[in-house]
Amino acid sequence: MNKGGFSQLWLDYKKRTDNGGSVYVSKVFLSGFLQDHRIVKHALEELKSGVQTMLGVEIKVEQDMSQATLVLKRGSEKEGGVRREGYRLWETGGVLTLAAADERGLLYGVFALLRLIAMERPFQGLDLLSNPESPLRMYDHWDNMDGSIERGYSGRSFFFQDDKVLVNERTRDYARFVSSIGINGVVINNVNVKQAATWLITDRYFQEVRQLSGIFADYGIRLFLSLNFAAPLELGGPQSADPLDPKVRDWWREKMEEVFSKVPDLGGFLVKADSEGRPGPFTYGRTQADGANMLADIVKPYGGLIIWRCFVYNCTQDWRDRQTDRARAGYDSFIGQDGDYHENVILQIKNGPMDFQIREPVSPLLGGLQKTNQMLEVQVAQEYTGQQIDVCYLVPLFKEVLDFHTYCREKCDTVSDIVSGRTFGNVNTGMAAVCNTGDDANWTGNDLAAANFYGFGRLAFCHSLTADEIAEEWVRLSISNEEEVVEKIKKILLGSRGTYEKYTCPLGIGWMVTPETHYGCSVDGYEYSRWGTYHRADHKGLGVDRSRLGTGYAGQYREPNASLYDNMETCPEELLLFFHHVPYTYRLKSGKTLIQHIYDTHFEGVREVEEMIGLWESLKGKVPDPVYDGVRERFDRQLHNAKEWRDQVNAYFYRKSGIEDEQGRKIY
Amino acid sequence: MNKGGFSQLWLDYKKRTDNGGSVYVSKVFLSGFLQDHRIVKHALEELKSGVQTMLGVEIKVEQDMSQATLVLKRGSEKEGGVRREGYRLWETGGVLTLAAADERGLLYGVFALLRLIAMERPFQGLDLLSNPESPLRMYDHWDNMDGSIERGYSGRSFFFQDDKVLVNERTRDYARFVSSIGINGVVINNVNVKQAATWLITDRYFQEVRQLSGIFADYGIRLFLSLNFAAPLELGGPQSADPLDPKVRDWWREKMEEVFSKVPDLGGFLVKADSEGRPGPFTYGRTQADGANMLADIVKPYGGLIIWRCFVYNCTQDWRDRQTDRARAGYDSFIGQDGDYHENVILQIKNGPMDFQIREPVSPLLGGLQKTNQMLEVQVAQEYTGQQIDVCYLVPLFKEVLDFHTYCREKCDTVSDIVSGRTFGNVNTGMAAVCNTGDDANWTGNDLAAANFYGFGRLAFCHSLTADEIAEEWVRLSISNEEEVVEKIKKILLGSRGTYEKYTCPLGIGWMVTPETHYGCSVDGYEYSRWGTYHRADHKGLGVDRSRLGTGYAGQYREPNASLYDNMETCPEELLLFFHHVPYTYRLKSGKTLIQHIYDTHFEGVREVEEMIGLWESLKGKVPDPVYDGVRERFDRQLHNAKEWRDQVNAYFYRKSGIEDEQGRKIY
Repeated sequence: MNKGGFSQLWLDYKKRTDNGGSVYVSKVFLSGFLQDHRIVKHALEELKSGVQTMLGVEIKVEQDMSQATLVLKRGSEKEGGVRREGYRLWETGGVLTLAAADERGLLYGVFALLRLIAMERPFQGLDLLSNPESPLRMYDHWDNMDGSIERGYSGRSFFFQDDKVLVNERTRDYARFVSSIGINGVVINNVNVKQAATWLITDRYFQEVRQLSGIFADYGIRLFLSLNFAAPLELGGPQSADPLDPKVRDWWREKMEEVFSKVPDLGGFLVKADSEGRPGPFTYGRTQADGANMLADIVKPYGGLIIWRCFVYNCTQDWRDRQTDRARAGYDSFIGQDGDYHENVILQIKNGPMDFQIREPVSPLLGGLQKTNQMLEVQVAQEYTGQQIDVCYLVPLFKEVLDFHTYCREKCDTVSDIVSGRTFGNVNTGMAAVCNTGDDANWTGNDLAAANFYGFGRLAFCHSLTADEIAEEWVRLSISNEEEVVEKIKKILLGSRGTYEKYTCPLGIGWMVTPETHYGCSVDGYEYSRWGTYHRADHKGLGVDRSRLGTGYAGQYREPNASLYDNMETCPEELLLFFHHVPYTYRLKSGKTLIQHIYDTHFEGVREVEEMIGLWESLKGKVPDPVYDGVRERFDRQLHNAKEWRDQVNAYFYRKSGIEDEQGRKIY
Repeated sequence: MNKGGFSQLWLDYKKRTDNGGSVYVSKVFLSGFLQDHRIVKHALEELKSGVQTMLGVEIKVEQDMSQATLVLKRGSEKEGGVRREGYRLWETGGVLTLAAADERGLLYGVFALLRLIAMERPFQGLDLLSNPESPLRMYDHWDNMDGSIERGYSGRSFFFQDDKVLVNERTRDYARFVSSIGINGVVINNVNVKQAATWLITDRYFQEVRQLSGIFADYGIRLFLSLNFAAPLELGGPQSADPLDPKVRDWWREKMEEVFSKVPDLGGFLVKADSEGRPGPFTYGRTQADGANMLADIVKPYGGLIIWRCFVYNCTQDWRDRQTDRARAGYDSFIGQDGDYHENVILQIKNGPMDFQIREPVSPLLGGLQKTNQMLEVQVAQEYTGQQIDVCYLVPLFKEVLDFHTYCREKCDTVSDIVSGRTFGNVNTGMAAVCNTGDDANWTGNDLAAANFYGFGRLAFCHSLTADEIAEEWVRLSISNEEEVVEKIKKILLGSRGTYEKYTCPLGIGWMVTPETHYGCSVDGYEYSRWGTYHRADHKGLGVDRSRLGTGYAGQYREPNASLYDNMETCPEELLLFFHHVPYTYRLKSGKTLIQHIYDTHFEGVREVEEMIGLWESLKGKVPDPVYDGVRERFDRQLHNAKEWRDQVNAYFYRKSGIEDEQGRKIY
């Protein structure tokens, strides 16, 4: 079911079987909310259109509560247990009640109700309380103003084209999609702010940005912009960006007054400073805190936030240098200033210390910092995880990160606890993801990649949802409620990350990808480069020694993690090569040698892709043809990719080690 | 000495010491040539301006031969031994005589005379006979119409910009430069003919192409165009390019009638067909000869030539496949049709079977073909040989190719014999080089790279010139006659190819370069790719077995070459890894193992670069500052590049073999 030629994804309100839902949704009473509040208005519109299409029921807004079968009312922690942006939905005596703490909560509750209808779930005896766990739930878009998308695999940008801001039908649908899964903040432009994008904070673009932020505000979403730290120089201000220079502060103060007066709904700014060639406070001998606080103080009167990325490392490393360790850089750069950051600054920390690999340890900054607002950054865009050609459902990875015990406190020490604010009692925390959308008709290139687009939002809202539950919701909402379809697609999704890991880089070592594009195998592609991303394979073994005897990275963790990682015997095996240089003949807990494990997993990975394809092919005719065909075609490419990885990795290590495969399979 | 901001290269007629030259050149008498013939006119102009600037002498054209001190006259094989395009210059009794067979010969003779003056050589007793050895001496430019240059390292194109043909002061200077070294044909556009370039044979561009060909004609140069074999389809002709389709032939006939009427000086066309994605006769199940002959027959009435490239191979090879051998492809594709090509078709054959590597065997097509016109193609543009950052004087490489015995006849069997027409008595033969120029002020990026630009032309004219002689001419003409300068720069140039070879890929194996850019080391960069360019290194050894037991490539040569290459013990060592897979512990004739040879040459290569830099630094103040500085800066980059190659190659093979360096040097 497309609208204007593009998919409606999980809001594809086609006809559903009525499990009694229509009884409840026909007569609505609104209490404690103003019907013409922009969010309420759009929540009701969504409810009406969804119910109309799915159940064929026309909603009537009642003036008398006693007539109502669906009561939408304001609740509170005491009344219903709802907190900020939360909702509760329950049925008693033939009446469905949706209580929400605020308008956003109401909107999220309406979408929850529509989900239940779409999944054909009954309402009798329902009692669903849902308060968002991450205060901030954000999508970051790496869209450039020329319309290209950095690490985009789904077409061009729908926010920008030819240095213009686009506002059209897709804008509103995008807002509907992401608000329906609980997203409350969106960064529309690439963190690498260059050329025209620097001018987004000038009157060249205010009108369109304001329009965009207005549409977002209709759905409870605050629009954020990525900021160029060198904007004063580039926009004709003082010839400096020194955060301690009064002229620079004055320029920013004036600029922000202008920006917030022109775009009052703006949420704030995302900044990538001193990273991969981007300007920042280091240029002027200032700290990251100096830079972030300067901006934060200025935007504070407007309720603005400064989200400061921690992706700082030396990207001109010498591969010969075994002391410098890129994995250490984030922690080393930021830990010293814990407590220096002002209350409306948030440090945005990538889930791992490297860069969104298929397997990394959790960043030691998370929970390493104790007096600083922290936001977890993950990547839904599949840069290193198959580029929306290969299926790779990432919710299991995100959940591993959330469940990780940092030992920063005796209890309440997981990443989930930290980014929900439970650990340190802060409110400016949350989760952000680099989004995977583009202007492809299906938004995400591979239809199955929409499960990640959907899943991140749902997980950020509710950390306790399982990967299985989220996958099930997504399939039922987007594709079909037919049990066979649900089970088979779930099986594909839930196994996909493990499969991808098997046929690519083993045991946490990462990389081994084609430079620049980051798709496809190149074992030595980054081995002699400046990027700090090495596997250090020789004829005896591979892996990076990050123990005390190596780079010392393991020591950045709190105990007992530090010791656990430091020791080859206790290090979790899936991260073995991240932390240790290991002989090919080392015996894993499975009893296999390392080299045999590499061979075996690579053969298994390809076999698993073939099995996934078999599962998918059995669904022909049971999923819409365009979805079937699009995914099927991508599976061909995935299989080709998996075979290349298998053969190249196996050939590489066979040629290097000279050790035969125990099973005598073909290695080139 | 720049003109319009750009260098005059070896025609930089600055003041010279007069070794008696002025006595001869002041009174000129012209016999048997028309003073207003376009070539004669420009030859006289060049003579006047050169003599004026170098010696301060004003030339007077005498009407009475008895008054003359310089007689320019028409000669012949019988009178003076001059043949087509040749000249003889001799002094007797105070009179200098320049006899030439034709106008081109006259022009070349004038440039020879000017060279002698510029090199401050005396004229007494001089007797210099020079007949060109290659009938065709061509520069191929890979310039695109948007102004970019494929594999260009000296700025943008000076022939094209923004899909327009440029005709300006540089055009004429370029024509002067190349005619002064004997070039008589120039292809102005890239062999990969796409977009606007397809339209060069339409009235969109006739006017400018005609202007350009007119300027070229002033200097005896015929302009050639690269042709898109699919032009009929793209220019609105029949929807086919099948060479045997009468509609296609008719279209081409009409097209060529138009082209040659609009651009009468046109020499013909260069065609890259069925190669790297280019269309060609194979698309229609026709032979290469079908395609070439069809065009050749049509252009024959206009004296046109069809130059057909033999660079045909499978560029989507599977790296796992050890049977397919790209090196075999040229021979396998063309040998079967020897004799089928019409008289005005020339097959243009790259010097080696791969693609302009620093060391390759000579293509077995050269001399393999016996009944086909052959043109040797070399690459002056330093695609794989340092990209005009690293110094790499290529004349020694070209000479090795020319001197190679193909054993296609008992005598007169070298490549030089073949491309001069001596072997098979044909006239449509010669040498072509991919040119290394661009719109940089010094034309070639690195000032020292102009030695290749100069050297190719001189060598194509006279195969017996040594690399040393050509280098000496170039230094004296372009930089200085000071002995120290001449000797030191010659030393740099003459050692440079060996040095480059030492620090890059060993013993003929080739590649190991960064994919796409082709600059910098990446040992495995092409090892798992589709390009057919592998080194097959494992923990025991490296190299490609192209013997009878391998791909059989060695068998494409005539005996005794075939047997020589086939046997590891008799194979020339510089090509050992091209023909054989060799254990690291194999002893070379030096007594060193293969692996130790690799280590040693890579350390030596870097040391030699340091020595070159030392030599260059000792010339500060003795060569013009812009030249000194430009070359010095490039030497920094070359040294960095050489160190990367050294350390990456050594690390790669050390890690793979586990064999220690005997000298215990640092390997990473």
